[in-house]
Amino acid sequence: MSRVRVHNFAISLDGYGAGAEQSLEAPFGHAGGRLMQWFMGTPTFRAMQGASGGSEGVDAAFASRWATGIGAEIMGRNKFGPQRGEWPDDGWQGWWDDDPPFHTPVFVLTHHPRPPLEMKGGTTFHFIDATPEEALAQAREAAGDDDVRIGGGVETVREFLAADLVDHLHVVVVPIVLGRGERLWDGLEGLEERFDIEAVASPSGVTHLTFSRRAA
Amino acid sequence: MSRVRVHNFAISLDGYGAGAEQSLEAPFGHAGGRLMQWFMGTPTFRAMQGASGGSEGVDAAFASRWATGIGAEIMGRNKFGPQRGEWPDDGWQGWWDDDPPFHTPVFVLTHHPRPPLEMKGGTTFHFIDATPEEALAQAREAAGDDDVRIGGGVETVREFLAADLVDHLHVVVVPIVLGRGERLWDGLEGLEERFDIEAVASPSGVTHLTFSRRAA
Repeated sequence: MSRVRVHNFAISLDGYGAGAEQSLEAPFGHAGGRLMQWFMGTPTFRAMQGASGGSEGVDAAFASRWATGIGAEIMGRNKFGPQRGEWPDDGWQGWWDDDPPFHTPVFVLTHHPRPPLEMKGGTTFHFIDATPEEALAQAREAAGDDDVRIGGGVETVREFLAADLVDHLHVVVVPIVLGRGERLWDGLEGLEERFDIEAVASPSGVTHLTFSRRAA
Repeated sequence: MSRVRVHNFAISLDGYGAGAEQSLEAPFGHAGGRLMQWFMGTPTFRAMQGASGGSEGVDAAFASRWATGIGAEIMGRNKFGPQRGEWPDDGWQGWWDDDPPFHTPVFVLTHHPRPPLEMKGGTTFHFIDATPEEALAQAREAAGDDDVRIGGGVETVREFLAADLVDHLHVVVVPIVLGRGERLWDGLEGLEERFDIEAVASPSGVTHLTFSRRAA
């Protein structure tokens, strides 16, 4: 059975995966780029920008696990764009350019389904109104033997964790106190009982936590 | 000038330094002993129990910093005991035995001052109704050239951090999600700007964070 994975999901010390006041100009709200700074120098991020090279070491190693063996992604609507409610006729095709970094089917959870959006490079956005279980069934079918990535944002990851649908969770704790925004851990009391957890600190200052589902 | 230090202060992944439903039987509430498990095997804790030996390694190294160079402690009333409001005539002398592990003056913050309580081994509890600044002035005078430790609980540490009175903060992040209780980080947005922060993961599973106040 294919696994369900979350990668490179950054939170502040106080557990916020995004700040307050999110907008088109500030997808992470008042957190700005601080949650993803550890990621910027990695070859994985640089390749997304069409550049080569980058750091080696523990941040780069974790970052690179993102795409390996992934056959589909599920994301919340807020990760796709800043619009809320009915889709405006604004030509929005996601935060990415015409060749998004996913290169797989991507299932966007929304209460406002619309026709699929086929991009370059193998990424097709499917807009579906579905529960986590229903979305996962569709994504698994699209992924074949490969794994399904839960791409975020915060609410989507939290919902899949609450529904006990996640097999592997990689969280990056950034040493900042955001104070406001969207919290990852809310409603997940006792989560540790379902996972083996490892922590490793990086010289960059962040701590990588991996949660691997315990064998039944 | 003597420094103000916090040591061995454990929190859950979601930032709780104590669980909900605290009582005489459960000083950490529903968290039970889970927040302090990393500490139990250290020589520092074993010595508090009158035992010798214990673990070596990073948990033991951090734990041992607790008493070195400390001349006084400030603690919140809830760390001293489970009573609230007026002091009952119940002979309560703290969670510890007649020779508490502090061996210095200890200033207990309470809205209900009472005469000092002199214990064996150099520990004297002073019960004062004071702001963080006022309490610190008294503790500094008692400590002489030595440092002042803020001993907890959560609210007391948070108040001293909010008042920017802490020079060194050692936090231990335990990989559990408590879900309810008292949060350390609330109201401390931007705390990282005042400190240099290091993280180191321990084989025990916890992560030690040290916050050292930046030179002005």
